[in-house]
Amino acid sequence: MNKKAFQDCYPEELSHCYGCGKNNPDGHQLKSFWQHIDQNNLLESTTIAHHMPDKVYTAIPGFVYGGMIASLIDCHGTGSASAMAYLSQGREMGSLPALRFVTGALNVSFLAPTPQGVELELIGRFSEIKERKVIVDITLSANDIICAKGQVIAVLMPDSMVK
Amino acid sequence: MNKKAFQDCYPEELSHCYGCGKNNPDGHQLKSFWQHIDQNNLLESTTIAHHMPDKVYTAIPGFVYGGMIASLIDCHGTGSASAMAYLSQGREMGSLPALRFVTGALNVSFLAPTPQGVELELIGRFSEIKERKVIVDITLSANDIICAKGQVIAVLMPDSMVK
Repeated sequence: MNKKAFQDCYPEELSHCYGCGKNNPDGHQLKSFWQHIDQNNLLESTTIAHHMPDKVYTAIPGFVYGGMIASLIDCHGTGSASAMAYLSQGREMGSLPALRFVTGALNVSFLAPTPQGVELELIGRFSEIKERKVIVDITLSANDIICAKGQVIAVLMPDSMVK
Repeated sequence: MNKKAFQDCYPEELSHCYGCGKNNPDGHQLKSFWQHIDQNNLLESTTIAHHMPDKVYTAIPGFVYGGMIASLIDCHGTGSASAMAYLSQGREMGSLPALRFVTGALNVSFLAPTPQGVELELIGRFSEIKERKVIVDITLSANDIICAKGQVIAVLMPDSMVK
C-alpha cells in the first residue's frame, strides 16, 4: 500500500507538474506517501514526503527560497487530497475515473529559515474531507525543526482543465 | 526612478533568490517596478511586474504550475515591501543599510487556471506599511484576466539570515 507514491498514480496526461509530475524531467518530482491510515477516523490519517531541494533553489545563500517551500507544500497537499479521496471512497489509488485535485488556496507561514543541504520532511494532516474538497494542513521540517506550516484547500480538478 | 528593478537594487550578497535574484542564472529573475507613486498617501501607490514563465513550469500541459505562481507573488511582494520601505523613509532604493524583506506569510487564492505562453502581469497594492512589516496584496493576471490573488506579509530580514 505504501510502496507507490501518490503522484506516481496520477494519469500519464496529468503527470507533468513541475512540482511533482513524474513526466516532468526538469521538476522536483516530489513523492508523497501514507504515513498512517486510520480507517475508523480518516481525519487522523497522515501523509509524508521527503525532498532534498537542488542547490539552485536559493533564497539567500544557505537557505531554501520561499517559492520552493510553497511548491512542496502545494504538491504534497494536492497529492494527499487525491489519496484521501480514493481512500474515503474505498477505491484503489489511481483507478479511473481519476480523482486529481488542484489548489483552490494555499497559505504558508514561514516560521524559520529553511537550511539548504538538508532533506526536508513534509507531514500532512486532514482538517476537512468532502467529495470535491479536501483541506490538508502541512508542516515542513528540516533537522526536526518546523520551518514552515501550510494549508492547502484542494478541490477536485474541474473538467475544463483536462483535455 | 522607474528604470531600475527593485530586485536589481538588492545588495550583491542578497541577490541569489531563485525567484528574483539577478545573481541566480537558473532562476526566474523577476523584475518589479513602481507603477504609481502617491507621495501624499503611500497606501495608494502600486507596483508592477511582468514575467513569461518558462515552458517547463507546467501544472498540466497548457497551464502554469501553482508553485511558480506562488513564487512570483512571493518575490513581487518582498520586492514591493523593500521599495516601499525605502520610499517611506525617503531613502534612495538600494542605499545602505539594506532594507531587504523576507516573507512571514504567503497566502494565494487560485481563481482560474493560468495559461502558459502568456506574459503574466502582477500588480501590488499595500494594505499596511510599518518599519519592520509591510503587507502587499497582489493580483496575477493573464490576458487581463485575474488568475490568482495573493497576500504577502513581508518582514524586515532578520540579522540572523545575513552572513
